[in-house]
Amino acid sequence: MRIFKKPLFMVNPKTYLYGDNVVKLAQLTEKVANKYGLDCLFTSQPIDIPALKQATSDLIITAQHMDTVKPGKLGVVLPEALNSYGVDAVILNHSEDPLTVSQLDDGVKKARALGMLSIACADSFEQCRAIAQMHPDIMICEPADLVGSGSTSDENYVKQALKAVHTVNPEITVIAAAGVDDAGDVIKMLTWGAEGTGGASGIVKATDWEEKLEEMMSAMAKFK
Amino acid sequence: MRIFKKPLFMVNPKTYLYGDNVVKLAQLTEKVANKYGLDCLFTSQPIDIPALKQATSDLIITAQHMDTVKPGKLGVVLPEALNSYGVDAVILNHSEDPLTVSQLDDGVKKARALGMLSIACADSFEQCRAIAQMHPDIMICEPADLVGSGSTSDENYVKQALKAVHTVNPEITVIAAAGVDDAGDVIKMLTWGAEGTGGASGIVKATDWEEKLEEMMSAMAKFK
Amino acid sequence: MRIFKKPLFMVNPKTYLYGDNVVKLAQLTEKVANKYGLDCLFTSQPIDIPALKQATSDLIITAQHMDTVKPGKLGVVLPEALNSYGVDAVILNHSEDPLTVSQLDDGVKKARALGMLSIACADSFEQCRAIAQMHPDIMICEPADLVGSGSTSDENYVKQALKAVHTVNPEITVIAAAGVDDAGDVIKMLTWGAEGTGGASGIVKATDWEEKLEEMMSAMAKFK
Amino acid sequence: MRIFKKPLFMVNPKTYLYGDNVVKLAQLTEKVANKYGLDCLFTSQPIDIPALKQATSDLIITAQHMDTVKPGKLGVVLPEALNSYGVDAVILNHSEDPLTVSQLDDGVKKARALGMLSIACADSFEQCRAIAQMHPDIMICEPADLVGSGSTSDENYVKQALKAVHTVNPEITVIAAAGVDDAGDVIKMLTWGAEGTGGASGIVKATDWEEKLEEMMSAMAKFK
Repeated sequence: MRIFKKPLFMVNPKTYLYGDNVVKLAQLTEKVANKYGLDCLFTSQPIDIPALKQATSDLIITAQHMDTVKPGKLGVVLPEALNSYGVDAVILNHSEDPLTVSQLDDGVKKARALGMLSIACADSFEQCRAIAQMHPDIMICEPADLVGSGSTSDENYVKQALKAVHTVNPEITVIAAAGVDDAGDVIKMLTWGAEGTGGASGIVKATDWEEKLEEMMSAMAKFK
Repeated sequence: MRIFKKPLFMVNPKTYLYGDNVVKLAQLTEKVANKYGLDCLFTSQPIDIPALKQATSDLIITAQHMDTVKPGKLGVVLPEALNSYGVDAVILNHSEDPLTVSQLDDGVKKARALGMLSIACADSFEQCRAIAQMHPDIMICEPADLVGSGSTSDENYVKQALKAVHTVNPEITVIAAAGVDDAGDVIKMLTWGAEGTGGASGIVKATDWEEKLEEMMSAMAKFK
Repeated sequence: MRIFKKPLFMVNPKTYLYGDNVVKLAQLTEKVANKYGLDCLFTSQPIDIPALKQATSDLIITAQHMDTVKPGKLGVVLPEALNSYGVDAVILNHSEDPLTVSQLDDGVKKARALGMLSIACADSFEQCRAIAQMHPDIMICEPADLVGSGSTSDENYVKQALKAVHTVNPEITVIAAAGVDDAGDVIKMLTWGAEGTGGASGIVKATDWEEKLEEMMSAMAKFK
Repeated sequence: MRIFKKPLFMVNPKTYLYGDNVVKLAQLTEKVANKYGLDCLFTSQPIDIPALKQATSDLIITAQHMDTVKPGKLGVVLPEALNSYGVDAVILNHSEDPLTVSQLDDGVKKARALGMLSIACADSFEQCRAIAQMHPDIMICEPADLVGSGSTSDENYVKQALKAVHTVNPEITVIAAAGVDDAGDVIKMLTWGAEGTGGASGIVKATDWEEKLEEMMSAMAKFK
């Protein structure tokens, strides 16, 4: 299982990028993360994973989805195949890719069995507590209606979500990232107690990726 | 919100029956339940609900599914429509009709807001604890691979599942019903601590429904 | 199989209405349809079907969805259960409730086997031709992005869609209804060749349902 | 768009293999296909596509699924990402990964727009005719209940399916492959008129892959 230290930065290019472009963003991310001594999740479509693993060595390469299927099914990616390419972590139950209760439970267990970190997303405080009972390694807590909105979670949400998760299991690392896209947002999230944050469209759509990563990671570095 | 007393009997005809036949089974169920002074959940497809509400007065008429949608969507049943016909309870997350984490969370809250009992199904102990964090009124705990199998949960599963739920929320009524189809099964489940049990295909496929209901409910009555 | 004559009017209350309100709209629809001698599809959530069948005698009561399942599955409505309550027709593959190719094929066949009219929805001209190959009784052709938009299909779309369907099977009755909500829209659709039209939110949200139905059906009556 | 000649061989390892093993099977497939001068589809999970493109040069590398999504969605693979890695073809609507009518229509169009071959699966004769109306480049016609069964389609099915597709569009290449796993099966399919065939578990589970490929492709070569 990949070891990581907090605070944790996350770059989530979703499907905005692929091929050479996503490799370029990953390399810039690794460069800036290393400059600031930060551990960093970098999420990927399955087809880009081999290139990302080859082009980087420190990033926590994270599959954006994992199917909990057995060999033989068609149209999916086998968890063992993710693992064979060196995937370090998997995102489960993102609001754009929701899982059933049973799939999420199976997914956390399967990731653990294969030595991959499980990162489970939760929305309401009830969901935060419920999913914490499944003991993923990391949770991303954010109100689903803020994803991609450009508005961050507020202080009350972040503090309550952290408390909800940690009351059930204090070992889970909690990321708060909804709408985060500049240094000010990073500082807010970490000040309110989040153990990680990062960006998706806020980074991908920046005109200068390295500058944006510098801005956000330098802000995070003060919380090491 | 419908009040009920434990132990709770459940008859789940799924889609094996409809129309006059399901009404007949409901009336027999009510007759036998009243004889033994038991409260009884009786599940229904939405199209049979009006007839079941008209033909019975004591059964806890339970929708087999609830969509958590807002007015306007097509191809579903509005929760408010269930409520307007007097539905007393709704089943959420049955293994044959699994819900996403978010839908289950919304479903429990919507049922509560409309004054209907929420009945959530769980499989593994992690799922039992997770779903208990959403505070449904009733949980049905059963290993998914035993549903419809004719084999009941074993003593270890029932006791551990009960403990898992009640450690999180002792107010939740826990039903264990997988594979239950005779008096011996009813006695086992209640002896191991279950607060309710019942049958699906085991009752529907019995040659004499009333005799089968007599056998199972008379066994349950000793645990009042 | 219910016999009907063209042009066909359709009222699709989706899940905007239920219980007494949907019964009231159905009764007004029947009254106005009879005044103008029109046959009329009236769509319904499954839970309202028994009340609608009891309160009306001439409307073609149409299920908004049909699951093509066998007895035993939970969380759905058995096709035979729809049939036992006298459902006259079923909508399949609405853009808000899309079906797989296989489910649509099975659905058309199952409806036919049970003596219910099948009404299949299509979007592009390729879909119009493809679905016509499955030989539903009625097709609703409308660009998915116009559903609920208040904008109707244009002349080119309606004429091409009609031609697409009828080149494959001239026996299929083609309805064009996207965004239709007044007499002018009804006249446009029928002038362009549609064999039926009607409304959903345009009728439900009218301040005076009877007046709106009068307006639209009186316009349609000129095309008898 | 990749050009190919008939008859077409297909190797579909589904998710039985991944990583080095699937690369090994692909290399053996290419070796034997070249020996017999056959064009060959080789299907892949997205994560293995980069390695397969690198390790082979003649195989028609085929994605086992394509999501018809726009940039930004998470948990899927962007069609443009498949294309950027040189994917030659995509399978759409396999019985283990069924698509809605609308997704299939979009998928065929998207593949064409990106210069990838579209391969659509169909079951009943109605589905064969319906899907042929969407004009995929290749169709795989097989009764869904035979997939993975070890039983092939019979003469009547293969001949009728071919006729169904070609009556609508004679340009579509039709593959019949259900249950095919030896030379005799290959000969039967091609004798009955199929323009391609191949194997999935029948090849993957053979003790000697090369021997199995030799057996099946040498049989096919007689139909060049």
